[in-house]
Amino acid sequence: MTTPTLHSFETLRVRREGSVLFADIAAPPMNLLGPELVRDLVSFLQWVEADEAFRVVVFRSADPDYFISHVDVTRIGEYREATVKLTGEPSLGLLFRHLSVSRLVSIAQIAGRVRGAGSEFVLACDMRFAARGSAIFGQFEPAFGVIPGAGAAQHLARLIGRARALEVMLSADDYDADLAERYGWINRTLPADALGSFVESLAHRIARFPAAGHVTVKDRVNAVALAPVEDFRRDSDLFLEGVRRPEFQRRMQAAMKRGFQTRDGELALSRLLDDLSDR
Amino acid sequence: MTTPTLHSFETLRVRREGSVLFADIAAPPMNLLGPELVRDLVSFLQWVEADEAFRVVVFRSADPDYFISHVDVTRIGEYREATVKLTGEPSLGLLFRHLSVSRLVSIAQIAGRVRGAGSEFVLACDMRFAARGSAIFGQFEPAFGVIPGAGAAQHLARLIGRARALEVMLSADDYDADLAERYGWINRTLPADALGSFVESLAHRIARFPAAGHVTVKDRVNAVALAPVEDFRRDSDLFLEGVRRPEFQRRMQAAMKRGFQTRDGELALSRLLDDLSDR
Amino acid sequence: MTTPTLHSFETLRVRREGSVLFADIAAPPMNLLGPELVRDLVSFLQWVEADEAFRVVVFRSADPDYFISHVDVTRIGEYREATVKLTGEPSLGLLFRHLSVSRLVSIAQIAGRVRGAGSEFVLACDMRFAARGSAIFGQFEPAFGVIPGAGAAQHLARLIGRARALEVMLSADDYDADLAERYGWINRTLPADALGSFVESLAHRIARFPAAGHVTVKDRVNAVALAPVEDFRRDSDLFLEGVRRPEFQRRMQAAMKRGFQTRDGELALSRLLDDLSDR
Repeated sequence: MTTPTLHSFETLRVRREGSVLFADIAAPPMNLLGPELVRDLVSFLQWVEADEAFRVVVFRSADPDYFISHVDVTRIGEYREATVKLTGEPSLGLLFRHLSVSRLVSIAQIAGRVRGAGSEFVLACDMRFAARGSAIFGQFEPAFGVIPGAGAAQHLARLIGRARALEVMLSADDYDADLAERYGWINRTLPADALGSFVESLAHRIARFPAAGHVTVKDRVNAVALAPVEDFRRDSDLFLEGVRRPEFQRRMQAAMKRGFQTRDGELALSRLLDDLSDR
Repeated sequence: MTTPTLHSFETLRVRREGSVLFADIAAPPMNLLGPELVRDLVSFLQWVEADEAFRVVVFRSADPDYFISHVDVTRIGEYREATVKLTGEPSLGLLFRHLSVSRLVSIAQIAGRVRGAGSEFVLACDMRFAARGSAIFGQFEPAFGVIPGAGAAQHLARLIGRARALEVMLSADDYDADLAERYGWINRTLPADALGSFVESLAHRIARFPAAGHVTVKDRVNAVALAPVEDFRRDSDLFLEGVRRPEFQRRMQAAMKRGFQTRDGELALSRLLDDLSDR
Repeated sequence: MTTPTLHSFETLRVRREGSVLFADIAAPPMNLLGPELVRDLVSFLQWVEADEAFRVVVFRSADPDYFISHVDVTRIGEYREATVKLTGEPSLGLLFRHLSVSRLVSIAQIAGRVRGAGSEFVLACDMRFAARGSAIFGQFEPAFGVIPGAGAAQHLARLIGRARALEVMLSADDYDADLAERYGWINRTLPADALGSFVESLAHRIARFPAAGHVTVKDRVNAVALAPVEDFRRDSDLFLEGVRRPEFQRRMQAAMKRGFQTRDGELALSRLLDDLSDR
């Protein structure tokens, strides 16, 4: 197998330190999860999983304001299709679940906004740490009448319990890093200037321990706490049914007019969604 | 169907704002959950669920010291019978579970004491927010040798984990709002003077988003995090077996003499139960 | 049945107050979980369970620095064999699970280090309270390439969720009492000088309430939140497979040279494990 260089990705900047890889998401202007980023995630995972020298992957963002904003709603068919190469079927949820069951240990180091499928991506990582005063979390899909399509309901119901999971999704609101920690959405919130070195040191510590134990631990924990494939597939189907409803289309058009899916417009997405509903 | 006016309930004061209903529990002298309140909850739910104009229900208390104290232990047969109209069988747990699976979004805004079946009622709501320095939670049933009968064991074991669920029930003790938040019993604790406007604004925000998405989200979350009907029914049966035991009767009589089921006597219920055991 | 005196255990100092027993672990020099302590735990449980006068057991440590350090890795076969008398098969996990389903209510009062099987022992207790600034928790087994063998993966995945459970085990790191509380690993952290009287008063309160209710509550909570026997057995087998691998042997020898399984060497175990990996 030919190993691509570390710089061959359009939307991921990869740096290697021993058996740890740092993958910075760089998809301007706002790290939308579109076909390009999905294709790169697929290629990246295939490359990394094929080489046993790699043990731990740290996902970060090159954009201080957006980790991953959410999916590109204008290209849903395309980005779903881009997952097939790895998962055999068009489903972002199954791509993310692939990461959850991978022998790789994945860590999300989160600054900036991570909403919708972005939040679902970090929920699929093995661990997630966030920068106080910077990271913002949201599952706003129900503001458009649809369920999150890539596993948020599965993860949140198991992780933070019925009432907080319902609050997060039904309110479609933003949650700062401290509240996200209190709710159990993320492992821990750290001061923004301490986050990088904390994660780096954790990643290297983990990478120094034997791979065999980590695989066993992940297997046993996933058997208890990770939703089965069918549940991810079902949510994915329900999302797709939802986006085809006229109400979704109508609300999405109204949102677009107000700046949805623009860098500036989503700095205060919570208010945008609130106003939208007043139409 | 004829719609009753908003003022037709004996123990519930209902106010409407758009598609949000505010239902204040008003069953003096201490908001006991007896046949009257159960009958009103049944009628209220039937009325509200039948009208698609209603989307979100906020439950509050008209009594600053008691949200719901607990069931009226002198009328167990009666209040259970009052649930049949909605659930088909006499079980408070199944009435509460009806609320959990309803298309309605339910929010508990809690000030004052909420113990026993009161705590189970708010556990059945989709979300619960409490006033710091005011709200007090307790599942004291095991102090009388019985399991909570309306779902507390089911909810708490899933929500706050084995050890905290056991502590809460075996200790039969009071938990203030801050500790209840740390344990995950409730969504969040807010300053008492900020609670009302927070919940009001959340309820209206949720009500402005499409109903279809909310139904799907509730279905999917309930499939993971809500106990099946059989488990509620089993706890209900175990409770009933328990209250028939002589030890329950004896302890309850002793408690009644010390002020149990009186407004003043239950202000410091934790101590009353402790003293009781010293008999 | 002849009741042994309260002082007949080699590694447990037992004191009785009414129906509450206080069992202080005293296995110098560092409260290793070896055959002696396992034998004593088995005898202690058999004795206490046989006498209905006993209701609540509080486990504490006679050593301020170590609650239970971990298993004696030089005597794995022996301590496993010592469980057979109670569980019918050689498995520490099944011994601990016996405690979880016992009619006895068990409370761990934790000061000092509690790592590996020590942490698994307190996870099997019904409740656990820790001293701020003193208690330290860790599941470091994956640093040697093995899964915790006595139930940690089962308990932690259910209790603290997928991401925190993975972090705790994959990092093999130390967690102080405050972080352990935030993660939900323990019920609560208290000031070190308040812990003893808090637990004492809780134990006596619980012991004053009827036994029948407690048995029912434990049954119902365990049915939801305690892993089945097969899962404990499977982890136990996976642990045993792991310790037979050459990599485990090699790492363990290197660790022993650096002071593993010595009182001084494990005061800063996190660093010892880190250095080990740099070999």
